[in-house]
Amino acid sequence: MTHRMIGILGGMGPEATVDFFREIIRLTPARKDQDHIPVVIRSDPRVPERTQAILSGGEDPTPCLLEGALVLERAGAGIIAVPCNTAHYFLPRVQPKVGIPILNMIEETYQSVLRLLGTADAVGLLATKGTVLSGVYGDVFSRHGVKVIVPDAGDQEAIQQAVFQIKAGTYDRARQDVFERIGSSLAESGAQAVILGCTEIPLGFHEERVSYRVVNATRVLAQAAVDWALERRG
Amino acid sequence: MTHRMIGILGGMGPEATVDFFREIIRLTPARKDQDHIPVVIRSDPRVPERTQAILSGGEDPTPCLLEGALVLERAGAGIIAVPCNTAHYFLPRVQPKVGIPILNMIEETYQSVLRLLGTADAVGLLATKGTVLSGVYGDVFSRHGVKVIVPDAGDQEAIQQAVFQIKAGTYDRARQDVFERIGSSLAESGAQAVILGCTEIPLGFHEERVSYRVVNATRVLAQAAVDWALERRG
Repeated sequence: MTHRMIGILGGMGPEATVDFFREIIRLTPARKDQDHIPVVIRSDPRVPERTQAILSGGEDPTPCLLEGALVLERAGAGIIAVPCNTAHYFLPRVQPKVGIPILNMIEETYQSVLRLLGTADAVGLLATKGTVLSGVYGDVFSRHGVKVIVPDAGDQEAIQQAVFQIKAGTYDRARQDVFERIGSSLAESGAQAVILGCTEIPLGFHEERVSYRVVNATRVLAQAAVDWALERRG
Repeated sequence: MTHRMIGILGGMGPEATVDFFREIIRLTPARKDQDHIPVVIRSDPRVPERTQAILSGGEDPTPCLLEGALVLERAGAGIIAVPCNTAHYFLPRVQPKVGIPILNMIEETYQSVLRLLGTADAVGLLATKGTVLSGVYGDVFSRHGVKVIVPDAGDQEAIQQAVFQIKAGTYDRARQDVFERIGSSLAESGAQAVILGCTEIPLGFHEERVSYRVVNATRVLAQAAVDWALERRG
């Protein structure tokens, strides 16, 4: 069996890339090394900070993302996955210059929500400020008539700080409690499912500890990449 | 701070590559994404099985390893790390055809043993049959006057089976007990330290549960790569 090669444009952050790579391995039916999917990863943590670029005029990450995508294409990848939700804001300017498709984690997550719920009226979103305020989720979901409920300003700031702490290597229980508590509050506000819409969040979130429905966008993207590699989709 | 880019020739197996990548991240002093080291990974699980090639005339993995190394070089890596001990048997035929250095996990592990013990007379080796019988460790250590103690045939077979079970995704307690028990028996035979000389073994080994000294070759290789990227070495 020859699988197609997945390209991963990662490093945003590196631990989230590890988590995504591990999801791909876990989702692949394999009994030995040779059953697994070939993967090429460019983990480039130098990509300028995405939320700062969106909100406060920080350096544009687009050139760095494009350079990485072209490296993956030249290295033989047939598709690109970008395990960073916030980076998706910039991808419409990268895709036209790359010869292979870039998976859209946000669209994939919408499809996954539909499969989970049948129909949806409202979902909750745990994500960075950049992802929330740029509307990458809001645009996709509202086009399909689904409302995206986001945290209030104080909770959003707490999420942002917890994400930065995870990027700094801090995974303690307090960080987990922030995500799980705010997710719960979104569910109480009417979210039928809560999206883990930042790839650092699954590193500090235990799905089995919460009573609301969760859609992990990292895992959704990994499943889409695996389905492509195994030729379950085009 | 601009770090140099590490190339990882992985996929042997994929989970061991994840473990190695994670060691690099853990060993890097970083407070934010941009402090981390750029890494390019080619995880190619299609590389023919190494132990079978060494022992029973299976397909030679050298061309596949060379192709991967060249992809990493073209993708901008400045050095290559191969997180598979058994693959080191084939690397002397790859290195001359690649323009960037390939780290030698076995030499690095010898240096790490010396740093740990001061001087060493004998070490134990937990590794695949291919690594043990091809003498990749024995050659390096005996050149320095250090004896390598290996398991008896029954224990060696048990290690090989446990490694294949880990590659198949099985990480249960029984697998861990095999490695820890056989390591203990090597220590009782005079090994001053026990080398985890197969990159699957750290996935099923808890160093804090054993009373003998352990040198994890995966971590040693990761440290060497990080030291190079941070320009602590040439």
